[in-house]
Amino acid sequence: MASTYAATNFAEKLAQFGERWSPKIIAQMNDYHFKLVKIQGEFVWHSHADTDEVFIVLDGEVTIHFRDGAVTVGAGEMFVVPRGVEHKPVAARECRMMLVEPAGTLNTGDARSELTAKDEWI
Amino acid sequence: MASTYAATNFAEKLAQFGERWSPKIIAQMNDYHFKLVKIQGEFVWHSHADTDEVFIVLDGEVTIHFRDGAVTVGAGEMFVVPRGVEHKPVAARECRMMLVEPAGTLNTGDARSELTAKDEWI
Repeated sequence: MASTYAATNFAEKLAQFGERWSPKIIAQMNDYHFKLVKIQGEFVWHSHADTDEVFIVLDGEVTIHFRDGAVTVGAGEMFVVPRGVEHKPVAARECRMMLVEPAGTLNTGDARSELTAKDEWI
Repeated sequence: MASTYAATNFAEKLAQFGERWSPKIIAQMNDYHFKLVKIQGEFVWHSHADTDEVFIVLDGEVTIHFRDGAVTVGAGEMFVVPRGVEHKPVAARECRMMLVEPAGTLNTGDARSELTAKDEWI
């Protein structure tokens, strides 16, 4: 009998939650998580001391601010924030992204606060 | 003076090559590579003993065959092939994908042949 294999559909997963700045885990590769997140407005300055962090924009655009510059990432684009580099994502309108980072990485990095999201699979 | 930060645009990168079954590296996160690949037709059966492998479809669709089933992955979808699991990607029409896997992972896994691609950044 054939096993059941199913693709993970981003639109279906994005329809399952509304809250912003709260990444949801949709897949795991080795010890890395793939997460979907909706953002709007300004996040906090933070950094991840031990890991790079991948932003892949699915819809909308995000401007990632650095202490010495910024980059705008639109749909169909990605950016890798190097480990240890302070950054602050900002989106004027809702932006939907996929993040890739080691399992257990906090969304707020070194800036733990009420914005710090819990690991949650959808 | 501001540093220069630039997003990686998938369409721009895909326009830089035409050959199929030859993944091109576009980004690195820690010791993982993000690669773009164009495929059409049937690939070889192979597996990766030491790592899971992520397929994210950007355009078109791929059917990943397993010894006991198959999954079709379309644009806006992803699938994680578990380590050690034999698989064979097939695409009737050209399919454009992003792969995520550890740096140094061979496209043909344990089935090294003339189809085995060299690491190449674009």
